[in-house]
Amino acid sequence: MDRLIVLKIGGTLLDEPTKLQSVLNHFCALSEKKILVHGGGAQANRIAKSLGLEPKMQNGRRITDEEMLDVVTMVYAGLNGKKIAALMQGKNCNAISLSGVDGNVIAATKRPVGEVDFGFVGDIDPEGVNTDFLSILLEQKVVPVLNAITHDRNGTLLNTNADTIATTVAAALTSRYSVELLLLTDRPGVLANPNDSTSLFSELHPSQVSALIDEGTISGGMIPKIENALGAIRCGVSAVRIGDGEMLESDRAGTRIIGQNGEQEL
Amino acid sequence: MDRLIVLKIGGTLLDEPTKLQSVLNHFCALSEKKILVHGGGAQANRIAKSLGLEPKMQNGRRITDEEMLDVVTMVYAGLNGKKIAALMQGKNCNAISLSGVDGNVIAATKRPVGEVDFGFVGDIDPEGVNTDFLSILLEQKVVPVLNAITHDRNGTLLNTNADTIATTVAAALTSRYSVELLLLTDRPGVLANPNDSTSLFSELHPSQVSALIDEGTISGGMIPKIENALGAIRCGVSAVRIGDGEMLESDRAGTRIIGQNGEQEL
Repeated sequence: MDRLIVLKIGGTLLDEPTKLQSVLNHFCALSEKKILVHGGGAQANRIAKSLGLEPKMQNGRRITDEEMLDVVTMVYAGLNGKKIAALMQGKNCNAISLSGVDGNVIAATKRPVGEVDFGFVGDIDPEGVNTDFLSILLEQKVVPVLNAITHDRNGTLLNTNADTIATTVAAALTSRYSVELLLLTDRPGVLANPNDSTSLFSELHPSQVSALIDEGTISGGMIPKIENALGAIRCGVSAVRIGDGEMLESDRAGTRIIGQNGEQEL
Repeated sequence: MDRLIVLKIGGTLLDEPTKLQSVLNHFCALSEKKILVHGGGAQANRIAKSLGLEPKMQNGRRITDEEMLDVVTMVYAGLNGKKIAALMQGKNCNAISLSGVDGNVIAATKRPVGEVDFGFVGDIDPEGVNTDFLSILLEQKVVPVLNAITHDRNGTLLNTNADTIATTVAAALTSRYSVELLLLTDRPGVLANPNDSTSLFSELHPSQVSALIDEGTISGGMIPKIENALGAIRCGVSAVRIGDGEMLESDRAGTRIIGQNGEQEL
């Protein structure tokens, strides 16, 4: 099986042009097949506020009403996606910025209203990923740049967490490729002490994760990130690492997430 | 040669949901290979004003400074493109909304600063159209939905007139398909008397056009539209018609633009 690298970058990277260029330089230079997934929450919040809209969050998750859906569609699929694609094209990397609606790449289901109405938010599973079309692009040496906008197949756009996009696309493509998933953060990985970058966990086993969450070492946005990572391993992704741009230069950088049975590709 | 229909719709159609649905219903039902090209100037102006920016025009052409480039990228490539693609997916038509940067579909050259500095505006020619990649999509029964954002291959996005995108893409694809170009307007075609829809020219020859411009019958935005149409015919496009949604239902609707030597496909 050919190797495939799926790299997820956060929206904050887009506010740091020098770092972004460096990450894209390394990513574009990878000889493996590759897919980039990007966020854009920080930019969406800025544009929303400029338009007089107040971003609403619930437990760290965005509530996406109709007006906010327009904003995230403009920012993720328009501004961020096309800027990244242009930068990559400038590095001779044939990027194609796609939302889930494009070529029906990722279909989602609108989240049912429970205690919270998240609005136009889409939940996805690997069956909703169009692996046939993504493979055609990859075989053409085209590099998909995916954002968090999905669709319900009936004409409605939906907003999906970008980490979830990355892990689900990685999981779906294990049927065709040996997939490595890299989740980029602004830290070198999961740290025992957030102020000490030498306290990096080079590996994390599922058994350790719940204890680290309980004691507060893993907190905030890192919790769903690691849960996504564990889910990806369970779905057959060969390796998942969480860390900074160093991961693109060294196989040993970042925190490697190990599956229940020690699954990993060394 | 297979037939290919290239349909250009204006941004104003996006403000008329019922008309838009009707046009997309007819377009999606076409059995030929097809490409949609859309504008979005009206929406871009609204968003720009909401963000406190004043749209600047010169002889009906937009001046695209850096802030306005962000706005048109958000609106054309984000909001409008993805909404149209979602509606088409809801009609079982496998749309893919693309900017010129995506898969390097349309490369452009930044317009040199002359008497007017148009800013981030891109001029294109048929050589800049990636007919290989568009053909791969068309052969996969994927329907490209193109917007006016192009790129310079060096990392910079550019804004290009959507009519020009439509005619240039149509011209470029004549090497592989028998191409018909339909330029949708809010009128049934070119009218001798703008208040009388029965005064429709069913055909227009180049020799008539300059006289009609001189006497003011053809004016404003219709002038570049017809000039684009004549250019497309010169480049080998089989048929060009200008008119309203009726064109998708009847080969006889709209104003048919005839080439210098009477080139047309009846």
